Amino acid sequence: MTTTARASVQHEDDQVRVTRWDFEPGTRTGRHVHAYDYVVVPVVDGHISAFAPDGSVSESHLRAGQSYARPAGGEHDVVNTGGAWLAFVEIELKGSSPVS
Amino acid sequence: MTTTARASVQHEDDQVRVTRWDFEPGTRTGRHVHAYDYVVVPVVDGHISAFAPDGSVSESHLRAGQSYARPAGGEHDVVNTGGAWLAFVEIELKGSSPVS
Repeated sequence: MTTTARASVQHEDDQVRVTRWDFEPGTRTGRHVHAYDYVVVPVVDGHISAFAPDGSVSESHLRAGQSYARPAGGEHDVVNTGGAWLAFVEIELKGSSPVS
Repeated sequence: MTTTARASVQHEDDQVRVTRWDFEPGTRTGRHVHAYDYVVVPVVDGHISAFAPDGSVSESHLRAGQSYARPAGGEHDVVNTGGAWLAFVEIELKGSSPVS
């Protein structure tokens, strides 16, 4: 059974990296740190849970076309906790201060 | 009758401006010049036509979640030439060289 969301880089240049993420129900990104500020554009409605290293969980209801922006430095494992496939497009802003 | 697409700024900071565009069939952005490099994320499938000042027309079939990136400087009037409502989210990269 696949447990990992599928990442597809659609575009990358000096300024930006654009990655589409497809999640079957229950799949996850794996824990990662955001090196750059980023914008997320949901492609469909869905529900995700972001598990932080300190054990806290952040629940989000995604709506197609309702973007949100987040700063670099966040660390989490994002899981599709809805009952259906979901996808979003992540735009990482490489001009922002990188976080290692 | 409304002839203009509806623009909604969802986020703006020093690096980026994120604008959702909603187009009923036949509506248009109006002619504009892209001051910055930009990424477009279609929210639904659709068909657009971009009319350039020289009279040329560029036709594009949009697919939900299939983004594309374009450089600053493009000038056009974008029209929803499909039969249904469409929407996309535009991410302008303010770190790119501005074009006036």
